[in-house]
Order: sequence, then structure tokens, then C-alpha cells
Amino acid sequence: MWIILRTLPILTELSTPAFLVDIVRMRDNCVRMREKARASGVIFRPHVKTHKTVDGARMQHGGGFGPITVSTLAEAEMFAAAGFRDITYAVPIAPEKLWRAAELASRIDRLNLLIDSELALRAMEERGRPFDVFLKIDCGYHRAGVSPDNPDSAALARAMLRSPVIRFQGLLTHAGHSYHARNASDVQRIAAEESACLTRFRALDEEFSPLIRSVGSTPTASVVESFTEVDEVRPGNYVFYDAFQAAIGSCRIDDVAVSVLATVVGSYPERRAAIVDAGALALSKDLGADHLDPDVAYGIVCDVDLNPLPVRLTSLSQEHGKLEGIAHLPVGTKVRIIPNHSCLTAAMFDVYHVIERGNVVDEWKPVRGW
Amino acid sequence: MWIILRTLPILTELSTPAFLVDIVRMRDNCVRMREKARASGVIFRPHVKTHKTVDGARMQHGGGFGPITVSTLAEAEMFAAAGFRDITYAVPIAPEKLWRAAELASRIDRLNLLIDSELALRAMEERGRPFDVFLKIDCGYHRAGVSPDNPDSAALARAMLRSPVIRFQGLLTHAGHSYHARNASDVQRIAAEESACLTRFRALDEEFSPLIRSVGSTPTASVVESFTEVDEVRPGNYVFYDAFQAAIGSCRIDDVAVSVLATVVGSYPERRAAIVDAGALALSKDLGADHLDPDVAYGIVCDVDLNPLPVRLTSLSQEHGKLEGIAHLPVGTKVRIIPNHSCLTAAMFDVYHVIERGNVVDEWKPVRGW
Repeated sequence: MWIILRTLPILTELSTPAFLVDIVRMRDNCVRMREKARASGVIFRPHVKTHKTVDGARMQHGGGFGPITVSTLAEAEMFAAAGFRDITYAVPIAPEKLWRAAELASRIDRLNLLIDSELALRAMEERGRPFDVFLKIDCGYHRAGVSPDNPDSAALARAMLRSPVIRFQGLLTHAGHSYHARNASDVQRIAAEESACLTRFRALDEEFSPLIRSVGSTPTASVVESFTEVDEVRPGNYVFYDAFQAAIGSCRIDDVAVSVLATVVGSYPERRAAIVDAGALALSKDLGADHLDPDVAYGIVCDVDLNPLPVRLTSLSQEHGKLEGIAHLPVGTKVRIIPNHSCLTAAMFDVYHVIERGNVVDEWKPVRGW
Repeated sequence: MWIILRTLPILTELSTPAFLVDIVRMRDNCVRMREKARASGVIFRPHVKTHKTVDGARMQHGGGFGPITVSTLAEAEMFAAAGFRDITYAVPIAPEKLWRAAELASRIDRLNLLIDSELALRAMEERGRPFDVFLKIDCGYHRAGVSPDNPDSAALARAMLRSPVIRFQGLLTHAGHSYHARNASDVQRIAAEESACLTRFRALDEEFSPLIRSVGSTPTASVVESFTEVDEVRPGNYVFYDAFQAAIGSCRIDDVAVSVLATVVGSYPERRAAIVDAGALALSKDLGADHLDPDVAYGIVCDVDLNPLPVRLTSLSQEHGKLEGIAHLPVGTKVRIIPNHSCLTAAMFDVYHVIERGNVVDEWKPVRGW
């Protein structure tokens, strides 16, 4: 019998740019959120779009294959193939993708879809398959979802209850406007409204009482002591967190589990600048919490303690990141950059290097595309 | 004998989001730039980082395998394997990647690397392989490169000429600050300086006269009538162009060869908004020419003529794009979005759908990673 040993690279020898996942921090983040959900007695259906990996989703569930939330059908299909049987696709579906959803739904226990219009309901009814469905409610983010105060929304909910085709599971909202918060108490206020909005809507009609209330955003889920007035929670970014979440108070900077390892490839002490080999295609161009600090730049530069002034990653082009405020950083120096938005940064990489106590202990490959 | 016919999807049936390449416009862009280079009698070494495909690079050379410029070693290796024999890697190389570069260089006619410090020169000399090298000059962009006015830069160039190991090919600059221009005449001025800067540097020492002068940025290469005072040009983005290039005057909006096809998945006429299924992971979060228009948003929305007011793509989350200024756009409607920055947007896709007269005529797969 042959045992095939997978050879993992050594951290200091990783080719840069590389996406690093600190497994200890990630596990801590996962345990904390799962425990909060368990103690609150709510269904825990974490979002997996931040990492898009089977290993990550299993860690969110303490090793199991519990309910998950996804952002693409490609994710749904990959996670279903890996053994996840209860999946919510939390983006309104394009009508022509209903065939793909139906095909997937037939292979697992439950695929929940979102509806936020009569037209979407009719499209599902025309397809004739008994889809499991949530009504998307807009709790103030004003992206997708029906207004909870509009009488048409209650009428749509009644039509969903009476539909001969769909199985109306519940009400779903996402307090994305928590990302505009300035601090944890702002987030607290939005968290209270996120849940209250669904409770109020459910109270509009006795018929609505069986509907479950599903909420989820990492800021709101992170700042509350426990989940109240809700039946299900769907945070996702908390597995990694990022510079943005730390800035608005969702986490401490030491909770952030990911970074991009980069190499200094140019040093220009005369302009107090250096260039690293992590540009927009490694970090993404998310501007982070620029509503709190217009000079936030493109991530937090770590491992640079040569200088008392902060070193800033002031601009990104395709493959160059420009550091400013540094006296001299020799070519070849490694730095880690905590990304502004870990979901977008992770998606730039085909492989994540999983680090435990300074060693590469695993490699994870995320699903891509749609 | 079996003939395998590749089945291509029909444009209207493409799963969204999809990256569309208008092959007629792209070919026109390619012909125009190549002809300008030919008429100017300069070496044409186009950058391939915008599309990262063999088909695209061959179109840049009218079907051939001429000299190219790349932004990653992964590109260099892929293009070398496809038959390209003369490649410039136009990002300063991390010292630990020299072994990979040496290995690649041994398989093709020439792999040009960049140097902009003594340290980089010493790292190459220690490796002992006769690398072909350009000295990177900073013509005002202040990203990478040595200052042409610093006496140390001329000293470095002399050290490169005398190096027993490297083969010093020439001077290379990139007027990336042309991207900060406000109009074509701004770009004209920067284009003149881009070339003049290398000519001046070369005149510092008679010994420098064999060095070729290599310039390249799509704005500067697009606005000049012909290439003067240079020996080689390396534009890249011009194959696709984008909303940014049109805004600063590099091209007409009708020259832009790419768009992202998206489907409306939510319609909210009460807030004059809609949601499309192209978010940050389809379009990238490049802010485009926001120095000209702070409200430029995330791309130009096309195919929406329901409304006299402009429809703006005001925000992107991971898988949602939010359109504002639209009375009603039914769920299921297809729109195309001209990206702000085609290089970053193209890199979000594993496949490009190549369109000619409304039909999908080919699929191209770009190289990814580093």
C-alpha cells in the first residue's frame, strides 16, 4: 500500500502574492458565532460566500454539514456535491436560472430561493416545481427586497402563502447598511431594526405566524450579545473578518484571520516609497471604511516595524501595490497586508494557504464563477 | 474520422454575468495600434495583461507571435508555451523568482526583466545567468523606476553596461500618470515627456547610445499621431479600451470592445432602482475616471432606453449591482455594462464570450494567478 503525502510549501518559501488563512483565528471566530447562535436557540445558516470552500463551511458548523447560505448557483452546486443538503441562495434569482435551481433542488433536501416581486413568484409558478422560498424584505439597506411598510408587500406574502406551487418558508432580510455604521453602537441600533422589521411584518397578518425570520450581516451578528426576535441567522464574513469590520467595530484587529503575503520588489527611499507584488488583482480595489477615514487606503500593512510612522498602501495598479511612508524597505522583504474586504480579496486567489503556528498546514481551493 | 464540433452558446441564452468581447471592435483597435507602430518604424511589443489570452495576443500581432509584454510570470510561462519567443516581464521581479525566470528564459529566445536598483542587479549577478535586462526609468508616475535626474541612476546604468552577467537591452518607462489626465491634450503632454525622458537619459553618456527606448501606456500611445523619439512601444489596454479610457480621451466610447452582460434580478420602481446580477466579483470595484466625475459610478449601463435620464450603477456588493435612476426595468431584462477598467474586469472571468454580429463565435480562456 502506498501512502501519498501531499507536499505543502514552507511559509517563508511561498510564492507571492499568497492568501494566508490563520486557522486558529478562523476557528475561534467560527466557534464564537456558532455558540452564540446555539445559546440563542436559532437556526444557524452561515453564509459561505466569503471563503467558498468546503473546509471553511464545515468549520462554520464545527465539522458538520449544516444549513448554509450561498451567493451563486456555482457555490450551491459545489457545496451540494460536497454533501451540504440544506442551502439558501440569498440573491434574487434570474428567471432563466430556475431550471438550474430546479435541477439542484431535486438532488438535496432543500434549496431555498428568494422572491421580492410578483413577477418572480409567477416565474416560479410557471416552472411548476415546488420551490422553497423566502420573501426578501428590505430592512433599510435599499438594495433588494420589498418594503415592509408597503401594503403590496403583505399582499405578495399572502399570494405566496396561497401559491399552489411554492413552499413559503419565511422572511429574509440583510442589514447591509450596517456596513455604513461608524461604530458598534450604530451597528447595535441597526441590528435591533433588522430583527424588529421582520417581527413587525409577520404581525401584519395571523396567517404569517408560521414564517421564520431570517437575518444576517456580520456587523449586526457580531455586536449583539445574543440573537433575539429572530429564528435564523446568516452571517458570513465573520469567519475571516477584515480591516473594514475592525474599523466599524465588528471585531478586534486581532480577530482578522486573513492576510495577503507580498514581496517588496522595488524600494525608493528618496520618495519614502516601496512597491510590493500585490496589486489590484491580489487585493481587489475595495476602499474599505473610507466613510470613517478618507485616507484608509487599500489595506493594513503588517510586519513593517522599521518606521515609527504608519506605512500606507496608497495605490494599487494591476500587479503593483505602492507603499508610502517608509524610509527603506529592502527588495525581497516580505510583508503581510490585511485586506479591506476579505470576501473580495479571497476571490482573487485560486488557492488559500492555511497557516497554523507559522506553518502551512493545508491548502484550500475555493469555487469560482457563477 | 470524427470531427468534434464545439458547441457555442447563443448570445441571448448566455448565463449571466458574462464577459463579452466585440471581436470587430477589438480587431479594429489592434489594427490601428499595430499600423501606427509599423508606420513609425518602432518595435511593437504590446502588453497582453488586459486579456491574458493567446488569441488576443495573436490578434495584437495580426496573427503572429511577435514580441509581447506581460505582468506576471504565469502569463510569461503560458505565452511561452503557446509559442511566443520574445517576452518582457514589465514588473520588477521578486529576487526569489529569478530561478523561475531563468528556467523560462532557457526555453525561449529572450525574456527581458526589469531592474531599478543596485540590489536587483546584484541579485541577478549572483544567480549567474545572463539575463536580458531593461533599466526601469520613472518618467513622472512615481510608482517603480529610478529617477532619470539622479546621478545614481546613470551610475547604475553604467554598472549594468559593465556587468559580466546581464545583457543590458535598454531603458523602459511607463507613463502611468497619463491615467490622471483630464483630456487628450493632457495626455499629449505626458506622451511627449514619456519619450523625451528616455532620450535625455540616454544622452547622459555616449556609452548609453545602443540602449533602446521602450515606452508604453494606452493613453499616450492612443493620442499620438506617430511614435517619435522611441524605439519600442508597449500599450496593452487599447485592445479592449474601457469607460475610463473613453473619459480621458484615449478612445471614443464606440471603440470599447468589451462589456459585462447582466440580468435584472430585482426591480424597485418605487425607489427608481433595480438590481442586476453583476456585482463586485463580475465588474471589479474600480472607480474609473472619478477625478473627472466624482459620480462616475461603476460602469456605463447600456441597452436601457426606457428612461430619458441616465441610469447609473451606483453601488456594487459581492453579487449585486444596484442601478439607480430607472423607472421600471422588468426582472429578466438583459443589460450590458461597459466596465470602468477592462483589465480588472476581464480578470474576474474564467471565460470570455467572443461576439461577432450578435453571435457568439468563440470562447477564450485567460491565464490566472502569478
